[in-house]
Amino acid sequence: MKALLMGLQDSICAGLEQLDGDGRFQEESWVRPEGGGGRSRVLREGSLLEQGGVNFSEVQGKNLPPSILNQRPEAAGHPWYAVGTSMVLHPRNPYIPTVHLNYRYFEAGPVWWFGGGADLTPYYPFLEDAKHFHQTLKGACDSVNPAYYPVFKPWCDEYFFLKHRNETRGIGGIFYDYQSPGGAIYKGPDAQGPAAAVGSEQVPERDWESLFQLASACGNAFLPSYVPIAERRKGLSYGDRERQFQLYRRGRYVEFNLVFDRGTIFGLQTNGRTESILMSLPPLVRWEYGYTAEEGSREALLTDVFTRPQDWLGDAALEQRCALHGAVG
Amino acid sequence: MKALLMGLQDSICAGLEQLDGDGRFQEESWVRPEGGGGRSRVLREGSLLEQGGVNFSEVQGKNLPPSILNQRPEAAGHPWYAVGTSMVLHPRNPYIPTVHLNYRYFEAGPVWWFGGGADLTPYYPFLEDAKHFHQTLKGACDSVNPAYYPVFKPWCDEYFFLKHRNETRGIGGIFYDYQSPGGAIYKGPDAQGPAAAVGSEQVPERDWESLFQLASACGNAFLPSYVPIAERRKGLSYGDRERQFQLYRRGRYVEFNLVFDRGTIFGLQTNGRTESILMSLPPLVRWEYGYTAEEGSREALLTDVFTRPQDWLGDAALEQRCALHGAVG
Repeated sequence: MKALLMGLQDSICAGLEQLDGDGRFQEESWVRPEGGGGRSRVLREGSLLEQGGVNFSEVQGKNLPPSILNQRPEAAGHPWYAVGTSMVLHPRNPYIPTVHLNYRYFEAGPVWWFGGGADLTPYYPFLEDAKHFHQTLKGACDSVNPAYYPVFKPWCDEYFFLKHRNETRGIGGIFYDYQSPGGAIYKGPDAQGPAAAVGSEQVPERDWESLFQLASACGNAFLPSYVPIAERRKGLSYGDRERQFQLYRRGRYVEFNLVFDRGTIFGLQTNGRTESILMSLPPLVRWEYGYTAEEGSREALLTDVFTRPQDWLGDAALEQRCALHGAVG
Repeated sequence: MKALLMGLQDSICAGLEQLDGDGRFQEESWVRPEGGGGRSRVLREGSLLEQGGVNFSEVQGKNLPPSILNQRPEAAGHPWYAVGTSMVLHPRNPYIPTVHLNYRYFEAGPVWWFGGGADLTPYYPFLEDAKHFHQTLKGACDSVNPAYYPVFKPWCDEYFFLKHRNETRGIGGIFYDYQSPGGAIYKGPDAQGPAAAVGSEQVPERDWESLFQLASACGNAFLPSYVPIAERRKGLSYGDRERQFQLYRRGRYVEFNLVFDRGTIFGLQTNGRTESILMSLPPLVRWEYGYTAEEGSREALLTDVFTRPQDWLGDAALEQRCALHGAVG
């Protein structure tokens, strides 16, 4: 898994440098006093990417924090090991979505589990982009087991949810956590919404090898899921209105990451490397008291439709609504 | 207490409009579905204040969240009532500090308590400003009881602390919570550092009336604690370097408020009015991976000295260090 995740960091960075054209990733290796370390790579002020961070880390510790032990009580009292690759991209052009990816693996005493996913946060609505992103990730999941995407898609909508805004972070993607043999696929603190309804009868075989294959297939699906979207939108010209809306919506990204994100909180709780953890925060952000998008605008469509859970791959009414706003392709 | 806090909102808004010259507060009244409401006032794009928010709220509910019940178990199962005024100012000129104030009062079944405080977050170091702010608040505390400031000052340093950065939010001020008769003055989740060492022998009489007087004295000390600092610095000219550093340091303000601040978390947990709660966030913010201030610069002095707990009112070595950098007055 470590080799997979380091290779994923390499291939993603290479693909992103090619996409950007100008920008290059700078690497910093670091050691964690309590055990482990990592390599953080950041690309700044590229021509396409305003900032992009791709981190690999491998860390160990004596006791997992209570938030994780609640989910895996068998790990209590055991030293733990975790390895992960995570990425957040903040493109400059507001027509190119922000995107996040994280794949990780934990071992602690008698238990181990896989987690991960990827989700897309557009600033302007293009149904075609949402479809492409979901279709590509669905393909990766289906290649291992077709039972995964129908669970991981709603799980993603539930996880990347800003309760105080009643908004999803964006159009979602896939998310999974605590994946190990036995039990229901969907078992975690998020098990409240539609995904919780998926019964254990739909659980596919989940041995170590198949969960590794899942991480591999999904991780390798990232570049094909995102690069075509960025290529399609990078030539669109934009003005101050679009830039201001992007900076405003980036505020939601900060709110999610600092208030809700388990990865961020885990990192800060376990004395992780702050600069690497907070590399996910956008380079420039705006808050505006009481902002609401103008009725009928693309900004309103983004807020009303692209921050709600949707069936991106098969909803005719959604397609019609987007078509009315010229927000299909 | 409600009358005091509404009057405080009025007098602070009037004083700030006078200070700003151009800007005017816009008010929105709101009702909370679960009970209560408030009036939020925001001043935007003033000549001195880039943004300022002064909120009054009076809210009720059926059950307090666990974070508060841990501190006041007697309140469990009782309906609660809370009233508070809070304020955050984000000035435009980086030489004028950001400042926060909050005074509040809770009742729940058999118990009631007062909380509050004010703290200053400079972007550039001026010892004179730190002294003035602390001296004014100390005077207000002393007018009720000289035992308060020596407890509330270190409590403020401990509360407004960014663990993941190992920094205080700024030069502090005063902070207190769960103040009611009996027990030690300092009794709360922050009771770990120097303030925890203050023994109960130093507890002054704390009946309802004297704690009300404390809120009144400290609340009314705000304008005299801050306006002279803003007046002194508003004419200083600054360039892009100072602006960029201000935007960068504002990121710490966001990190504190979203990750640590009990007021923010309480508001979001109790279905508070999101726009009013997050009015504390700065209008424009920057994050920069791996930034460190140039050695010997004023930015380094700010980071090394003005984000650490200091004895602002009587430390000769601190005075010398600031003098070396021309950062006294």
